[in-house]
Amino acid sequence: MIMGKGLKSWSLWHLLVLSLALNVGLVMKMAYERESFSRAVEGAQQSIHGRFCEEKHGGAMVEASMAVGSSEIGRFSTSVGPPMASASSDFLPVADDGRVINLDHGDPTMYEKLWRQAGDKTTVVISGWQYVSYFSDPNKICWFLEPTLEKEIIRLHEIVGNAVTEDRYVIVGTGSTQLFQAALYALSPPEETEPISVVSATPYYSFHRQVIDHLKSGLYKWAGDTDSFNKSGPYIELVTSPNNPDGFMRQAKVNRSGGILLHDFAYYWPQYTPITSAADHDLMLFTISKSSGHAGIRIGWALVKDKEVAKKMTKFVELSSIGVSKDSQLRAAKILQAMSDSTEQVSGSEVASDNFFEVSFGLMAERWRQMREAVKKSRLFSLPELPSALCNYLKRTFETQPAFAWLRCEGEIEDCEAFLRGHKILTRSGKHFGMSPKYVRISMLDRDENFRLFLKRLSAIFQR
Amino acid sequence: MIMGKGLKSWSLWHLLVLSLALNVGLVMKMAYERESFSRAVEGAQQSIHGRFCEEKHGGAMVEASMAVGSSEIGRFSTSVGPPMASASSDFLPVADDGRVINLDHGDPTMYEKLWRQAGDKTTVVISGWQYVSYFSDPNKICWFLEPTLEKEIIRLHEIVGNAVTEDRYVIVGTGSTQLFQAALYALSPPEETEPISVVSATPYYSFHRQVIDHLKSGLYKWAGDTDSFNKSGPYIELVTSPNNPDGFMRQAKVNRSGGILLHDFAYYWPQYTPITSAADHDLMLFTISKSSGHAGIRIGWALVKDKEVAKKMTKFVELSSIGVSKDSQLRAAKILQAMSDSTEQVSGSEVASDNFFEVSFGLMAERWRQMREAVKKSRLFSLPELPSALCNYLKRTFETQPAFAWLRCEGEIEDCEAFLRGHKILTRSGKHFGMSPKYVRISMLDRDENFRLFLKRLSAIFQR
Repeated sequence: MIMGKGLKSWSLWHLLVLSLALNVGLVMKMAYERESFSRAVEGAQQSIHGRFCEEKHGGAMVEASMAVGSSEIGRFSTSVGPPMASASSDFLPVADDGRVINLDHGDPTMYEKLWRQAGDKTTVVISGWQYVSYFSDPNKICWFLEPTLEKEIIRLHEIVGNAVTEDRYVIVGTGSTQLFQAALYALSPPEETEPISVVSATPYYSFHRQVIDHLKSGLYKWAGDTDSFNKSGPYIELVTSPNNPDGFMRQAKVNRSGGILLHDFAYYWPQYTPITSAADHDLMLFTISKSSGHAGIRIGWALVKDKEVAKKMTKFVELSSIGVSKDSQLRAAKILQAMSDSTEQVSGSEVASDNFFEVSFGLMAERWRQMREAVKKSRLFSLPELPSALCNYLKRTFETQPAFAWLRCEGEIEDCEAFLRGHKILTRSGKHFGMSPKYVRISMLDRDENFRLFLKRLSAIFQR
Repeated sequence: MIMGKGLKSWSLWHLLVLSLALNVGLVMKMAYERESFSRAVEGAQQSIHGRFCEEKHGGAMVEASMAVGSSEIGRFSTSVGPPMASASSDFLPVADDGRVINLDHGDPTMYEKLWRQAGDKTTVVISGWQYVSYFSDPNKICWFLEPTLEKEIIRLHEIVGNAVTEDRYVIVGTGSTQLFQAALYALSPPEETEPISVVSATPYYSFHRQVIDHLKSGLYKWAGDTDSFNKSGPYIELVTSPNNPDGFMRQAKVNRSGGILLHDFAYYWPQYTPITSAADHDLMLFTISKSSGHAGIRIGWALVKDKEVAKKMTKFVELSSIGVSKDSQLRAAKILQAMSDSTEQVSGSEVASDNFFEVSFGLMAERWRQMREAVKKSRLFSLPELPSALCNYLKRTFETQPAFAWLRCEGEIEDCEAFLRGHKILTRSGKHFGMSPKYVRISMLDRDENFRLFLKRLSAIFQR
């Protein structure tokens, strides 16, 4: 202990007391908590769904909700329409305290509960002397990437089957946001006198445009929608798939010579969309914010085919922040490992019910069922019809259930964002995505409490 | 536990066993480790210095080295010349395995040993469900700043007295590197049609220039040395103080109307330079990499006077990486707390010998003594004469002892970097800092082993 004798002894005594207390706690915990994870999942479903339906709708609905996370989960994924059309608008027994519900950002706090239930498997302990150096492995192209994180990234992709990792360089970033800019930096031809055009099909991810517009790089510039793009020469096309905001799977649209593709696969995970094949592109971005839900740790990664591009992306992260937090890399590795470990019981066509993706899929399926029901009830909004497909990972066919709802105000409401703001629901207007203000993007990943209150308010809005 | 019953029970059993083992370990530790920190400091000094001198130079030198970290430390700080002029060039009993010594970067691995000795005071434990959200405090301007980190930043500055924190906004960044760019973004007038000029006095920090040149922002551009800058209109002047690479304290040089100052105080800590007053400028950058030596956690902070600048800097960090790793913020808070706690015994003019800054000051003083000795021995190099001043914090007068040595090759050697590379010592050429290639910048913060080997090689180079 660097801080003197007195403090040192004090600290050791405390540790001993703490450790003894831990022993007692652990023995008690082992005695009382011997239930299976299925039970924990049931608990999760009860807290998210039970309070919505249990009290006013009796047994049938509760049974349906309890099946989330079990082998019966399939019926949630294939049910499109709301089974509760007869319910009244105030069926939700949640008290409205008049708070502002902020669903503008995609803050994935829904996952908090899931990881709380997961216990100590993903707890990290980091000593004061660890991670002093800038370097993780000076001999690798991405010299600031922790080897344990690289291993777990590759392992998870191989298990889920959502991306090809063979012959790819893994580059870590402070969220995929930093890597998005690293990719643009790496893909922009340095010898060009004018910035390269960056295009994306409408509705495009508002943040991508904002980053490009605001930071005013001399290397690249926003050139708008793919359909109206007719400039010759090199260009970069952003392909966000599933798309943010609307959840549809995307392919490149321009397909001209000189085109360079940048794929953002933040949402290509089985809780959101069927995994139909392993993505196999030159430059693919992923993030832990949307796969495990840990937005606060700011870790993203890129899978990069070309060595020179990987080098330039690494250079960007060096210039931008001299690498990426080692603490968060260590933590991300632990979380990805827990996700992979949870799938270990998978064999053949059977997916175990205590699988992370199974559980989070169940939560999303339930939220989407409730969302469609609330939208139907209000008669003032509509949602896109999303496609179904067979998920190679979950081994079942289901309809895309995105992290955002792309809601349209029907009838005379021209500014959907302002309309919902009047009901203290903050959303992001369609105009930021290159679309009409009749649309809004709504996060589906908020905490239960807020999501429930949001649905209550939405259900209560009736067409006059 | 999210991952199934079997794994859960396994984990609990393991925790219990681990905890019991911890008890035994703690009891043993308490029995055997009752020495004061002064002893630990002595150990540190022995390992860094003892092996240099003890075996071949007997009692006197050992005594001198052991005094580092004690109240006698002053004589190290005021001794400029080497007391061991009679020693032969091979007096260093360190085996040269022919490795390449990389002192190009300022990787502060010297501190690793210090924090290892500090024990578990700065160990962080983070559970899987923590820091899921992007937000730390949505009501604050810097909404991604953890309140505990803000508190510890202010506390440490108040203790050390190196910066005014009253009426300042604290903005956290992924290292001060990200905040450097955030500051340029915030200070650049958005309405200007051409990028604002950024100037700095030569020798300037090479990385600052590299960041500006490579990322080619449309908002600001590198305009070179302050002396040759004669463009009218607004400009930003970078003031790095103590300066990187040469360690001198700096003031703004241009002093024209329209000038905006950006102060980088990465090295304004008492182990490197006397703290003569609390810095009081509009925008000041600090980093944990150089204060505690934790480069791998990537945490820096800015103290910002103007509210609109603070808002724009926050916006930059949002666009650049949607905030900053919460894990590293938590860890940085713990480390800064330990640094502050270690100074608690300070009263009046007496500074306790187990004070973090006292100990790290001692390490730097010793390294600089050895460095000057090696340089004198070689008769081929020179070092700048650095100023002495009274440090208000350490309550003694000492000569600046920077994190980098700014070495000049004398005589006919025109390319000092290439010359040292020939001896397998990697340094950064003066040309990157806007100076002659006769200069090189050398990190003084590497691990003991490398620093020792470096000194051995430097001492062995004689003018022919």
